[in-house]
Amino acid sequence: KLYEAIKAKQSYLCVGLDPDPAKIPSSFGEGVKAMESFCNEIVLATQHVAVAYKPNLAFFEPYGADGWAALDRIIEAIPGDCLVIADAKRGDIGNTAKKYATAIFDGLGADAITVAPYMGEDSIRPFTERSDKWTILLALTSNPGADDFEFHGTPPLFERVLDRAQGWASPDNLMFVIGATRPELLSRVRELAPDSFLLVPGVGSQGGSLELVAEHGLNSNCGLLVNSSRGIIYAGGIDSSIAEAMAKTKAAAEVLAKQMSATLQQ
Amino acid sequence: KLYEAIKAKQSYLCVGLDPDPAKIPSSFGEGVKAMESFCNEIVLATQHVAVAYKPNLAFFEPYGADGWAALDRIIEAIPGDCLVIADAKRGDIGNTAKKYATAIFDGLGADAITVAPYMGEDSIRPFTERSDKWTILLALTSNPGADDFEFHGTPPLFERVLDRAQGWASPDNLMFVIGATRPELLSRVRELAPDSFLLVPGVGSQGGSLELVAEHGLNSNCGLLVNSSRGIIYAGGIDSSIAEAMAKTKAAAEVLAKQMSATLQQ
Repeated sequence: KLYEAIKAKQSYLCVGLDPDPAKIPSSFGEGVKAMESFCNEIVLATQHVAVAYKPNLAFFEPYGADGWAALDRIIEAIPGDCLVIADAKRGDIGNTAKKYATAIFDGLGADAITVAPYMGEDSIRPFTERSDKWTILLALTSNPGADDFEFHGTPPLFERVLDRAQGWASPDNLMFVIGATRPELLSRVRELAPDSFLLVPGVGSQGGSLELVAEHGLNSNCGLLVNSSRGIIYAGGIDSSIAEAMAKTKAAAEVLAKQMSATLQQ
Repeated sequence: KLYEAIKAKQSYLCVGLDPDPAKIPSSFGEGVKAMESFCNEIVLATQHVAVAYKPNLAFFEPYGADGWAALDRIIEAIPGDCLVIADAKRGDIGNTAKKYATAIFDGLGADAITVAPYMGEDSIRPFTERSDKWTILLALTSNPGADDFEFHGTPPLFERVLDRAQGWASPDNLMFVIGATRPELLSRVRELAPDSFLLVPGVGSQGGSLELVAEHGLNSNCGLLVNSSRGIIYAGGIDSSIAEAMAKTKAAAEVLAKQMSATLQQ
């Protein structure tokens, strides 16, 4: 499904849904209702060029049950040809991880989940066992704190995660998160995980370059999902009307998708 | 608040609320309503000896909005002299972690949250910045998968986590998760983190010994919270009446608390 969407749209754009009430155009109103209609409009404005959407659970959980219900409806409304990635970064012992898998895959109906590797194999396997769903394991993240532990040891921890985890699942349902902010390491990641899809955050607001990511990260199967959140969803600014905001969001997504299309044709 | 409760109750028992519908006595009924009344009864039966409760979010999330609402009410009903630990194991970049902190501390009203360290300082600081709340960082977990990454490097990763994280917050609002299944390493943890509270899961069902944990883990301030989930909450078995089940739960909690009291008097 993912590869077909990439071929059809000539894009590997993932749009991150991080609806922050402090940044949503005020024309959407307030609170969780504004978040929901904002996300729905973002999907409508970008679905012709996006192959995946990545709602971030942290932005919904402050609203408790109402936030969870809104997230459920937002996911329901995403077109079937787009991958839904629940950005949840869960990670717990086996019997607990199984519950998280049920919550995300069956409850919310997401196609994929982001998972933290710290606790090792039994915390990851309940997700990868679901052969119909994607597990997206953190390896090398885009934030400054990545320096604290992800480079620890020889080989650095993120390399060990890449190495170990490929023994636990196939590239058909296991991807890795690799931040765009360290493009010089993408070649190394490609050596270690030649066949895996990589979910790459950090292009745009966090300073990563799409050209470098494509140069070092593409494989013969595309092998990339590049995420942009703030650069697309807040393109309109807080004072714009809904129509203006969505026109700018659409344009921002199209610019990125066009760059992606060019890298696929090289 | 925590230390006062430990002194008053002469116990450092944390009761884990992992309500699994497949194990809850059938007399409680079914689904999320059964989970909620089961948890409420557990709290009533154990609050005279427990100093903390640790609801595990994974067991509520499969029920979506209803599960979240039930969790909210369960936390509301826990007596004020007991610490409420949201076992959530969240971990994400700074702006996202801030949202999780809001969701757990302000939305759910928990006093503490478990956090995964993989992504480093900026993923942890939004929690530790809340000086009125506890951050409980995973260091050495009790599951088999702990071998995969937590011992990676020299010093092993969990030691680096202990070392680094103590530079980011004080022992007054930062604890560590250290599994009871490796008591031989508790002395080493105490060397590295002499003043920190340790949340210790893995006693009981997972095979850890309370005596060894106390021997190696107690400090002059107690410094321990020992969690038991399955051994207490499912003590009654699935076929018992509510009254029978709660009598056995009460007795199981009292046995553990009595052992704790003895270790505190030595």
